[in-house]
Amino acid sequence: MSISFASDYTKGAHPRILEALESNNFNQMPGYGTDEICERAKDKIRKACGCRSAEIFFLMGGTQTNQTVIDMLLKPYEGVVAAGTGHIAVHEAGAVEFSGHKVLTLNPAGAETDTDRYGSEIGKINAEELRAYVEAFYSDDSFEHMVFPGAVYISHPTEYGTLYTKKELTDLAGVCREKNLPLFLDGARLGYGLMSKRTDVTLQDIAELTDVFYIGGTKVGALFGEAVVFPRGFPTRHPVPVIKQHGALLAKGWLLGLQFDTLFTDDLYFEISKNAIDMAELMKEKLRAKGYKFLLDSPTNQQFVVFDKEKLKEIEPYVGYSYWQKFSATQTVIRLATDWATTAEDIEKLDKYL
Amino acid sequence: MSISFASDYTKGAHPRILEALESNNFNQMPGYGTDEICERAKDKIRKACGCRSAEIFFLMGGTQTNQTVIDMLLKPYEGVVAAGTGHIAVHEAGAVEFSGHKVLTLNPAGAETDTDRYGSEIGKINAEELRAYVEAFYSDDSFEHMVFPGAVYISHPTEYGTLYTKKELTDLAGVCREKNLPLFLDGARLGYGLMSKRTDVTLQDIAELTDVFYIGGTKVGALFGEAVVFPRGFPTRHPVPVIKQHGALLAKGWLLGLQFDTLFTDDLYFEISKNAIDMAELMKEKLRAKGYKFLLDSPTNQQFVVFDKEKLKEIEPYVGYSYWQKFSATQTVIRLATDWATTAEDIEKLDKYL
Amino acid sequence: MSISFASDYTKGAHPRILEALESNNFNQMPGYGTDEICERAKDKIRKACGCRSAEIFFLMGGTQTNQTVIDMLLKPYEGVVAAGTGHIAVHEAGAVEFSGHKVLTLNPAGAETDTDRYGSEIGKINAEELRAYVEAFYSDDSFEHMVFPGAVYISHPTEYGTLYTKKELTDLAGVCREKNLPLFLDGARLGYGLMSKRTDVTLQDIAELTDVFYIGGTKVGALFGEAVVFPRGFPTRHPVPVIKQHGALLAKGWLLGLQFDTLFTDDLYFEISKNAIDMAELMKEKLRAKGYKFLLDSPTNQQFVVFDKEKLKEIEPYVGYSYWQKFSATQTVIRLATDWATTAEDIEKLDKYL
Amino acid sequence: MSISFASDYTKGAHPRILEALESNNFNQMPGYGTDEICERAKDKIRKACGCRSAEIFFLMGGTQTNQTVIDMLLKPYEGVVAAGTGHIAVHEAGAVEFSGHKVLTLNPAGAETDTDRYGSEIGKINAEELRAYVEAFYSDDSFEHMVFPGAVYISHPTEYGTLYTKKELTDLAGVCREKNLPLFLDGARLGYGLMSKRTDVTLQDIAELTDVFYIGGTKVGALFGEAVVFPRGFPTRHPVPVIKQHGALLAKGWLLGLQFDTLFTDDLYFEISKNAIDMAELMKEKLRAKGYKFLLDSPTNQQFVVFDKEKLKEIEPYVGYSYWQKFSATQTVIRLATDWATTAEDIEKLDKYL
Repeated sequence: MSISFASDYTKGAHPRILEALESNNFNQMPGYGTDEICERAKDKIRKACGCRSAEIFFLMGGTQTNQTVIDMLLKPYEGVVAAGTGHIAVHEAGAVEFSGHKVLTLNPAGAETDTDRYGSEIGKINAEELRAYVEAFYSDDSFEHMVFPGAVYISHPTEYGTLYTKKELTDLAGVCREKNLPLFLDGARLGYGLMSKRTDVTLQDIAELTDVFYIGGTKVGALFGEAVVFPRGFPTRHPVPVIKQHGALLAKGWLLGLQFDTLFTDDLYFEISKNAIDMAELMKEKLRAKGYKFLLDSPTNQQFVVFDKEKLKEIEPYVGYSYWQKFSATQTVIRLATDWATTAEDIEKLDKYL
Repeated sequence: MSISFASDYTKGAHPRILEALESNNFNQMPGYGTDEICERAKDKIRKACGCRSAEIFFLMGGTQTNQTVIDMLLKPYEGVVAAGTGHIAVHEAGAVEFSGHKVLTLNPAGAETDTDRYGSEIGKINAEELRAYVEAFYSDDSFEHMVFPGAVYISHPTEYGTLYTKKELTDLAGVCREKNLPLFLDGARLGYGLMSKRTDVTLQDIAELTDVFYIGGTKVGALFGEAVVFPRGFPTRHPVPVIKQHGALLAKGWLLGLQFDTLFTDDLYFEISKNAIDMAELMKEKLRAKGYKFLLDSPTNQQFVVFDKEKLKEIEPYVGYSYWQKFSATQTVIRLATDWATTAEDIEKLDKYL
Repeated sequence: MSISFASDYTKGAHPRILEALESNNFNQMPGYGTDEICERAKDKIRKACGCRSAEIFFLMGGTQTNQTVIDMLLKPYEGVVAAGTGHIAVHEAGAVEFSGHKVLTLNPAGAETDTDRYGSEIGKINAEELRAYVEAFYSDDSFEHMVFPGAVYISHPTEYGTLYTKKELTDLAGVCREKNLPLFLDGARLGYGLMSKRTDVTLQDIAELTDVFYIGGTKVGALFGEAVVFPRGFPTRHPVPVIKQHGALLAKGWLLGLQFDTLFTDDLYFEISKNAIDMAELMKEKLRAKGYKFLLDSPTNQQFVVFDKEKLKEIEPYVGYSYWQKFSATQTVIRLATDWATTAEDIEKLDKYL
Repeated sequence: MSISFASDYTKGAHPRILEALESNNFNQMPGYGTDEICERAKDKIRKACGCRSAEIFFLMGGTQTNQTVIDMLLKPYEGVVAAGTGHIAVHEAGAVEFSGHKVLTLNPAGAETDTDRYGSEIGKINAEELRAYVEAFYSDDSFEHMVFPGAVYISHPTEYGTLYTKKELTDLAGVCREKNLPLFLDGARLGYGLMSKRTDVTLQDIAELTDVFYIGGTKVGALFGEAVVFPRGFPTRHPVPVIKQHGALLAKGWLLGLQFDTLFTDDLYFEISKNAIDMAELMKEKLRAKGYKFLLDSPTNQQFVVFDKEKLKEIEPYVGYSYWQKFSATQTVIRLATDWATTAEDIEKLDKYL
């Protein structure tokens, strides 16, 4: 296969990270993230978030982070509210349930082919829907026999690459505070959301509006790693044993700190995120020029494109992609993702096969 | 601090691993360990184990591996038998219990100062003790109200650096098979066990005698990673969702394959493990020459040394160590560990402070 | 309140059960259901089911039974398929998730007011929908990252009092066997289903078509208790520790055996179940005569009736009912349930207030 | 078998309970313990405890209660401290671990034959040992990698029938408060402890000194049921969903209230508990007169008696007993328990076989 747009985690790490790894390789470090590189990385993240008192820890991947954070937020009899299409609801093999909690889905997952459905709403939770859900819950006579909503999980960008507007996020955060529900934002692809041409949401906004969020490294320039930020402090007195108990405490925790220290030096995280967006825009241009239709108008690095099955078979040996869903008897939706390292040359290569 | 022997995970990775990372950095890979580098690494490990049909997967760290593997081995009403000093019994923040299983300890953890107790037995499970335990269990009238022994966990080297002899391991495996208990060997420091001057146990023996074991990378030359080997196949039809559910499925799984591929090329794993042993022997020599006593005669890379508290305070600014336990009113046992990258020069540095 | 139709568990037990209790009160029994009364009850149930080799145990209530049985059926990475309105999906406070498993809902719960929706389908799982769901699951590229369907949960009667026809149940069982999914039937109100005027499903059919089901006692004449029947044997070698681990092993297990022994002597269970049906038919007649509308045409002992809010307020001091759902701005759906002990006089009383 | 002393749960319930059942049988009650009988019972218990503001709920049996209460007390990363011989540590099939928590045992279970070991200490937790344990925990460098002590579980009487003195209980409670550990007292046999000839501990003392305890019904005159008392309020805002989630919410909760209402009317609970003690004293007299030795000098209703194996075989067809442990090559320790309904005539019968 000459080139792949199958996902944004097909490559290693930004070269500056590898350089940092090499130059720190024989500096002896204390274990489990208690080192000074982690502290330095946290400080840079705090600064970028405009949130001096934020508490931060680093974990290795998305599912692990979702499972661990949700477990920290919830009481045993509570569940987490998510969109029906949310990653935790569908693609984490029941990691939340494994920890004993129910995922309460506001709107069920579906694989519809009506493109009208795929507006900017898809993948998101609506503030008023959430309010209605919570109020209906507490007004149910038998609510004590049901799973209590205990936190709200959203992702930004969502599974469909869509983004909350600042107003939507503010409204959602408002309902969450009113109903005493911590708001957790999965930012596995946060950089691509922040650098979208069509967003008015900043990192500072997220730090202000959510109770916990993470800055994805795995899909944005790091080998692996997610920086979990609690703008107003940890919800538990002892996060370490909770992390350890989930098998999520990396012995050489400084590897995580080092990657985020690099990404948050000289705005590297934002710069490489912008690259993915620029390349996605270029890719969309090429696709549109060739007459391709899109499932939805995604403002981030993931594009959901309708292909004739015949055409797909033709490009398959040369272009990596992800199957997304059926579109019609003869057509399929695929996902094409750009990333922090995609080049204009890569897009040219793709264009040749379109 | 000029030098640290606090643990065997204070440094990054063997330079060949960093080189491999760099040269593969922009080769696009499929996700979750479904790549060819992982396959290549597995083949090399199979060959080293003399076990062509072994099933293998890679995880990120010890606690994660112990939790996930034990969960695969046990039925819901079963617990795992371990030594009272076992890592899963003491130092994993209840990760096994978090997964719903009890750790059944054969001999309780203790911090005794009687060095007679610290023979080659410490940290191990004895075959006859295990047999007696299992037979007592099933002859108890109320065994159905108790936690069934469902698997046996050992580590090699143990928490105290001790090693099973081939006879001990064979006897233990015999009881396990007789009693239908899978035997799981935690090899977080396996290289250091295999290259000890005082062992008759080979990697092939372990593959023959256990039902699952892992080859530790984190403490033996890798950035992170453990290679989990099931010599006679997986105990579950679907290991992937179990791994995912534990938050243990690395997106860029090829990072694990690449490290083990490097470690199992040209016997690198064994060579660097041998270095740690050679350096530990040199360190012991220096310590003995200065009259230091040892808690036990450890045949591997971890040494447990008795220090006067005064002396400890003196060297503290220059030498990193781990507190192990109280020895007497004026004396303390510390752990000093060599590793894959320790040099004779490092030992000389230490010697200056002794 | 002069009379209540709020539920079918407002009263104690059939007098013959109290008599049996009294006459056995000082006969000393071994603990935990290992007694001969339990054996006698099991034999009678086996006979009634036409299934000599069935394995049976007794538990105390519905949620406990659902949680324990589902945990016995599933592998750790599997979930249980249920209707979105299913009791385990909505009204058990997350007891299934507490045990680590996801409830996979085929059709989401809703509170619609369109009576067309409330045909005989409501609350049930359709065989073809199930087949489509399972086939879509395994044809998804990323199914190993999703929760596997591992068993199917249905109730008969359902939450809405509806019943499977023999053909529907046969088709569903067919798909379950084809897809290797054990079929679990929640029979908390089984008697009322079996004695409905509009059913062609017998107890023997259920024993033949399901892998496990229970015969509800709590709502059908017992003080408490559910008889769990595995027509083709237990799915686990050791059910006792699983039951114990769920806190579900009653010390005086003979209390459960004694109640079922009584209920399955001289067809008492069927006779008193028929009474509830007869009384429900009488109640429907009275309601219809007064012009009341029904949410759906329930063939069992629970009736879902549309009341003007004004009227409800009027009868509230005299008639116990359960709020079910909103119907319109001025109307509410309530549930009225008859039971094993409802008398024609009770219905007359109700009629006076209508 | 003509008579059994195998346990204190071989019989039904005190006749007054059966009478109450019968007279309330057709009084319609709301579900799940929200009825007035439960309220009445709670008030009587509050009065007996001298604790007007106590919060109370009723559960069905010991393991269920231990599991549910412990789960309410602990944070996810905490375990419960218990004696090595504690019921939760040995005889509950891992119900605590099933809920995700470790049982931290202060002194391991053993089956020694040295009667010197079996003083009044056996089965208990010592305040100073607890203090030492907790202090050692927090002074361990790696305590965040270990299971935090989060609550203390004791039983009174213990598994061996022994009792805490008021001083011992006060000291223990003192350490618990100092270390911020809720103290939970398992009172499955509480009545027999309170009515012992050799106790200075009252129900009021227990309400004052513990954070939660239960008054056992199953073994003391009820068909089943334990009254869980939180003298200073619930540790969770919503106990109902926690109970429901554990499958522990009885539909006809009034059955539990009714039994405790009866037991706490006219001091019935104390009166029948005293009967068991009187009969135990009589039994001891008879045994001593015939030269039998005791494993320990139990002050409550369970007696642990050394029998020649030959003699045991002889009485086996006539006298029910529980095997307890091996004593010597030719001798066995058995448990003989009196209960709320044991008569002097029963003891005479036993005496004939001694």
